[in-house]
Amino acid sequence: MKKNSINRIFLYRSCLNRLRLMGVERVFSYTLANETGVTPAQVRKDFSEFNIKGTRKSGYEIDDLLARMEKIFFGNRDHSIILVGMGNMGQALSKYHKFVTRNINIVATFDIDPFKHKYKSDIPVYSMDKIKEIVSKHKVKVAIITVPEISAQEVTDMLIRHGIKGIVNFAPVLLKSPSDVKINNVNLCDELERVIYFVHKQLKADGLKNLELLYRDMKY
Amino acid sequence: MKKNSINRIFLYRSCLNRLRLMGVERVFSYTLANETGVTPAQVRKDFSEFNIKGTRKSGYEIDDLLARMEKIFFGNRDHSIILVGMGNMGQALSKYHKFVTRNINIVATFDIDPFKHKYKSDIPVYSMDKIKEIVSKHKVKVAIITVPEISAQEVTDMLIRHGIKGIVNFAPVLLKSPSDVKINNVNLCDELERVIYFVHKQLKADGLKNLELLYRDMKY
Repeated sequence: MKKNSINRIFLYRSCLNRLRLMGVERVFSYTLANETGVTPAQVRKDFSEFNIKGTRKSGYEIDDLLARMEKIFFGNRDHSIILVGMGNMGQALSKYHKFVTRNINIVATFDIDPFKHKYKSDIPVYSMDKIKEIVSKHKVKVAIITVPEISAQEVTDMLIRHGIKGIVNFAPVLLKSPSDVKINNVNLCDELERVIYFVHKQLKADGLKNLELLYRDMKY
Repeated sequence: MKKNSINRIFLYRSCLNRLRLMGVERVFSYTLANETGVTPAQVRKDFSEFNIKGTRKSGYEIDDLLARMEKIFFGNRDHSIILVGMGNMGQALSKYHKFVTRNINIVATFDIDPFKHKYKSDIPVYSMDKIKEIVSKHKVKVAIITVPEISAQEVTDMLIRHGIKGIVNFAPVLLKSPSDVKINNVNLCDELERVIYFVHKQLKADGLKNLELLYRDMKY
């Protein structure tokens, strides 16, 4: 299965989850296509590869589609992850209740600051030297990094040494890693700036249009 | 300028910012190409469209490149934004110091809960009925939404009514909006699940490889 089709599957899934939250029960390939920017034929092809078929009359049943995707891609498992760096962002993510609804469990968090350590909390905060033990005990393969950028590479190296194979990195640093480790960077500044850029472009275009209209009015 | 080239420019920019944080001063087109998944020729073409030229011998100077991109795409302006929803995620984002380094200023935040209101704070927390006044006063065009999914659409509608043209939405809901409003969805569950999926695929592949090796060893 190619990387692009996986990316599409994730887009469909995200879209389906959002539609379900809106109370929608069934979806047509053209709706999914429209929401994810591909052709309806592509949507149907992607799903048919996994023997998921809709009908021309009533489309796909969203719950069924999601359940099948869950089984195919994630094996309906619980996912134990850890989080390193209990600053503002780390604390917010450790309390993010949506993770639980997707079978993602943060089994432990870690911070360098002893004042943040809480061993008896629901989601404990340990010192960094406990990473090895916890990762091994819970067979953790995935970690979230919310440490300052200056220590992000060091933390990454340590995590990989202890067996972590996938990282969602919130530090705005280009992390070096072996090819068998998957790193997903979430850059919140970039997300905002994309929107800011489009808004300014739009306002500029509107401004020009208004000038043109003004000019047209002046001519007559 | 097409949408894809804009997306590439953002990838370059994000990569350049990360390289700069690592202390790198100059970059070649093939480094940028490698980091962003395009060809070196494409990188050079994208930059030359804006009269940004590197040299074969020493590439591009990162600071210069970033400064030019800043000027071309953002006009070196300060960007006043607001944030709605001061739950865990909203509070973390309102304290996110990286925004300031990119000229993004959260001028005010809003929450429905009167106990969260703080009028005299550095970044004040107001009641929702102050949105109109603040947006108008600071000429705000961009907002971050970190409200529960159940109220995300209602908040979006209100923001658009008061002149907001761009939204970064952290609620896992498909928001309806007019075509001149840009919405960027950040779905943290999806980000994590992408990594989880790749890790599981990798582990499965490794498992199969080990089985094959075992089988090969058994044959001899």
